[in-house]
Amino acid sequence: MNAVPKVIADALPASRKIYVQGSLHDEVRVPMRQISLHPSSGEPPLTVYDSSGPYTDSTVRIDIERGLARLRERWILERGDVEPCEGRPVRPEDDGLSGEGTATRAFAQPRRTLRARCGKAVTQLAYARAGIITPEMEFIAIRENLGRRGEDAPARDGNDWGANIPQYVTAEFVRAEVAAGRAIIPANINHPELEPMIIGRNFLVKINANIGNSAVSSSMAEEVDKLVWAIRWGADTVMDLSTGRNIHTIREWILRNSPVPIGTVPIYQALEKVGGVAEALTWEVFRDTLIEQAEQGVDYFTIHAGVRLAYIPLTARRVTGIVSRGGSIMAKWCLAHHRESFLYEHFEEICAICRAYDVSFSLGDGLRPGSIADANDAAQFAELETLGELTRIAWRHDCQVMIEGPGHVPMHKIKENMDKQLEHCGEAPFYTLGPLTTDIAPGYDHITSAIGAAMIGWYGTAMLCYVTPKEHLGLPDRNDVKTGVITYKIAAHAADLAKGHPSARARDDALSRARFDFRWEDQFNLSLDPDTACQFHDQTLPKEAHKVAHFCSMCGPKFCSMRISHEVRMEAREQGMQEMAEKFRAAGAQLYVPAGEEG
Amino acid sequence: MNAVPKVIADALPASRKIYVQGSLHDEVRVPMRQISLHPSSGEPPLTVYDSSGPYTDSTVRIDIERGLARLRERWILERGDVEPCEGRPVRPEDDGLSGEGTATRAFAQPRRTLRARCGKAVTQLAYARAGIITPEMEFIAIRENLGRRGEDAPARDGNDWGANIPQYVTAEFVRAEVAAGRAIIPANINHPELEPMIIGRNFLVKINANIGNSAVSSSMAEEVDKLVWAIRWGADTVMDLSTGRNIHTIREWILRNSPVPIGTVPIYQALEKVGGVAEALTWEVFRDTLIEQAEQGVDYFTIHAGVRLAYIPLTARRVTGIVSRGGSIMAKWCLAHHRESFLYEHFEEICAICRAYDVSFSLGDGLRPGSIADANDAAQFAELETLGELTRIAWRHDCQVMIEGPGHVPMHKIKENMDKQLEHCGEAPFYTLGPLTTDIAPGYDHITSAIGAAMIGWYGTAMLCYVTPKEHLGLPDRNDVKTGVITYKIAAHAADLAKGHPSARARDDALSRARFDFRWEDQFNLSLDPDTACQFHDQTLPKEAHKVAHFCSMCGPKFCSMRISHEVRMEAREQGMQEMAEKFRAAGAQLYVPAGEEG
Repeated sequence: MNAVPKVIADALPASRKIYVQGSLHDEVRVPMRQISLHPSSGEPPLTVYDSSGPYTDSTVRIDIERGLARLRERWILERGDVEPCEGRPVRPEDDGLSGEGTATRAFAQPRRTLRARCGKAVTQLAYARAGIITPEMEFIAIRENLGRRGEDAPARDGNDWGANIPQYVTAEFVRAEVAAGRAIIPANINHPELEPMIIGRNFLVKINANIGNSAVSSSMAEEVDKLVWAIRWGADTVMDLSTGRNIHTIREWILRNSPVPIGTVPIYQALEKVGGVAEALTWEVFRDTLIEQAEQGVDYFTIHAGVRLAYIPLTARRVTGIVSRGGSIMAKWCLAHHRESFLYEHFEEICAICRAYDVSFSLGDGLRPGSIADANDAAQFAELETLGELTRIAWRHDCQVMIEGPGHVPMHKIKENMDKQLEHCGEAPFYTLGPLTTDIAPGYDHITSAIGAAMIGWYGTAMLCYVTPKEHLGLPDRNDVKTGVITYKIAAHAADLAKGHPSARARDDALSRARFDFRWEDQFNLSLDPDTACQFHDQTLPKEAHKVAHFCSMCGPKFCSMRISHEVRMEAREQGMQEMAEKFRAAGAQLYVPAGEEG
Repeated sequence: MNAVPKVIADALPASRKIYVQGSLHDEVRVPMRQISLHPSSGEPPLTVYDSSGPYTDSTVRIDIERGLARLRERWILERGDVEPCEGRPVRPEDDGLSGEGTATRAFAQPRRTLRARCGKAVTQLAYARAGIITPEMEFIAIRENLGRRGEDAPARDGNDWGANIPQYVTAEFVRAEVAAGRAIIPANINHPELEPMIIGRNFLVKINANIGNSAVSSSMAEEVDKLVWAIRWGADTVMDLSTGRNIHTIREWILRNSPVPIGTVPIYQALEKVGGVAEALTWEVFRDTLIEQAEQGVDYFTIHAGVRLAYIPLTARRVTGIVSRGGSIMAKWCLAHHRESFLYEHFEEICAICRAYDVSFSLGDGLRPGSIADANDAAQFAELETLGELTRIAWRHDCQVMIEGPGHVPMHKIKENMDKQLEHCGEAPFYTLGPLTTDIAPGYDHITSAIGAAMIGWYGTAMLCYVTPKEHLGLPDRNDVKTGVITYKIAAHAADLAKGHPSARARDDALSRARFDFRWEDQFNLSLDPDTACQFHDQTLPKEAHKVAHFCSMCGPKFCSMRISHEVRMEAREQGMQEMAEKFRAAGAQLYVPAGEEG
């Protein structure tokens, strides 16, 4: 339990970290990953989005005990609207140590806690509304362009379902989207280690990975390792869903070592503080937990304030009742006290806390469907309307908001979720779990949900919460985390392609060219998971020679379509086919004579 | 190489094989799988579609050396339109033994080869047009209803995009769909071991698994094992894509032991016969191969007759050229001879062969895109129009036809494929490979393609050709075959749900009820892959006690939403919430008071 977490800290194959300098703000240096290609390609390195932080920068020395460099610290202080505060003292119950269980060693590095000066709103939304382009916004603008310049005009098609994806992202565009509430920048002033990122329909689709121990199993060292592992493969944010012992301490280790935003569900810790008895929860305990976590630097809170007393009966005839943990806890509280939840009644006070640290809201869908049978039902959509109300309240308080979405939804009911969310929640970003498109494949729910995730991402969801193969069955281990992340990178990228995001297709095209040219190493290096691609190739054809072979194990040399296709192309060239093709295209229409008239 | 293939021959957990008797034809006994549930559920066993054949019937003794029982033999003979024929003698080159390589032991059981009596059409299409309901058609009608009776009216919603899925499938409906060319029953008269199945937009979505050795690796015993393994997990048809040595012999072993239709790409074997030199192919060698395979009992042929000389230049500027093996072989032949392919010129002669054995056409998309960049291009759609022409010719000859589709297609271009296919090919069934929705994830292309497959299945594709994790990288092994099949069962089922197929949701609902009731064993047994579901559960919570626990490892007892949800439900019951819910529903409208006005 007390071991120093071991994490992988090296670059991905053929990759190096580059930094793109900002122009509005000197200190803005945006990390990207450059994948170099074989000289025979004649192609420049491909630049890809990189959420992995300093861990993949070979020039940075990683020391988990010290935490990451605080790249945002000066930006935050220079705004002049925060002040150090003493901070809420850590109490034994923060780690749930009232009962049995081993204490985890505390993160020892001292740290100053910040909060907003009296009455100030220190949120990116407040700045955006005031017309201020923060360093965070410039950072994001550069990041979203993936090294493209404004004058580049890549091939682009797609159907964006009414989104407004620009050809080139400017810092002003980022500001305007945040100001409109259409995008959020989760970035707590107490999480200066964070590399800013944005969640919004007009930006690249993001993915979240969940980690966290449970009362039943897993340790701190494991969770920090999972964090680093998840971002290595592309998680854009990570939620710490710990519910067991040492919650506070594990979270500190995670935050101090995380370059991505960290989200939590504060009701989990609050419940631990009252011994797991939902009815015993109070606003005071919850409020205390919010401040505790906000001071640690949590970037977004899932708040299930949409679970209203009146909606609970709507779940009575469901096949799977209430499947959100937070939702079921609040439903139980509401019924036990027969009143509206303290989350709903004290929502404006929650806003005041979020505003003072810039914690973004992730308004939880406590009544999301847990089965195909319950999809798009009255309970779900009643709550969604309430989430829309709460969004407007949070916006009045300058708080950033995204909305959580389902769950289990068959394909034909997915779009209605997106449409209703846009309608009720004023285009606040949507953040969905899957959705799973069938219930019949436990053990493969990363796949049942990737189908729904890709579709809803295409329709406009800004962030996709991953689902691992262990969903419904057990706690994900390291391999499951990786499988979940890669699967969701696929879904998010498929969505970007279908939306016609101008940065998206470059990687597909580069990989496809490598494939057609039999540049096997390039094909591996350009893929989402080079290790697996290479390993799969080597299982059938292990010899090094085969990695330069102009065929592969599927077909062998005689049946290799790509090899033959090259021969066809050469032959065509000799026959002046390129020229013929032009003529053919120009001639149009008469593509064929029906076979029956000939043969 | 000469070992007797070992195959798994036992039932799936909690499952038994049942047979539903036909009423029109006495000999029709349709196999289904019944999954029994825990007595506490109070539910009857769930009946599911079963493509696994006698291998999962504990009362049948499997002997690979003898082959399966010939359940269709009498049906075929009693129609009085076939006659035994001497059959084309097997030649050494059928097994590609001109060169080096080990001979595989022949399948020894003697067998009579049948063909149509002079001039007779022995296809299911011919019978359907003549108004005859064959035993095959009745078999299929019963099979598609999954044990439902005509008077059952299950909950049903969905969007079928203009399909015409009946509430209950009658034998007459099957006949009418086959007569209209909207569905096919691949069932060669020389494959009497086959359990009839149907491929059509108004039936359950089917999946195909590819097996087959290659010049580089794998053996006969492996391939038979893969066949049995693939159908165990749900493959509805299997394509034998062997290209190496012993093609003829391996195919015989496969056919004699296959209860599902077997498809091939005859050009592969023809190419072996001419030493792998595409230009050396002739109509005579190809024709000889068709007869050889038709006499063995192959149920459908992929024929790339749509690759016309004029289309080849359209591929010149593609990123990945021609990626279909058959397509590239034919393109090479066309260019070398500078003439239309023999497949196109002799198409009506091919029809005559297919008509005499009832081999269905799977018109190959030799010019399908092999990358996102090439999707929906001129070459692809030019070929599709030709496939439409060829469909009409085949129909004139009473031949059954399906159309192969792509490939690599981003989400926003998928529907156009379906729409154009329906338009050009007169609603002949569509049979697509994936499509893969991005190129950047080699090693995970079962997932990139499952997204596209689920969507195009929803839009109307009748059969989905699986893609395994090894796609683009290597030959699939046993595990890859299983992963591919389960992934595609997910895609097909998600499509059935979204189309609103009346048989589809029963399994989801049964599994979700089991999940909500903490009937862990039922949850495993109802899933597509009980072994993996159980194993994943046991990894975190191995103790037997936990399989009856009313919580799981993800959340532990305190945080189990389903457990709390049960408590909520009990509490609600005490408070008469059910009644309140009714009132609430009746009252409608006033679901909430905006939080701002209260809190």
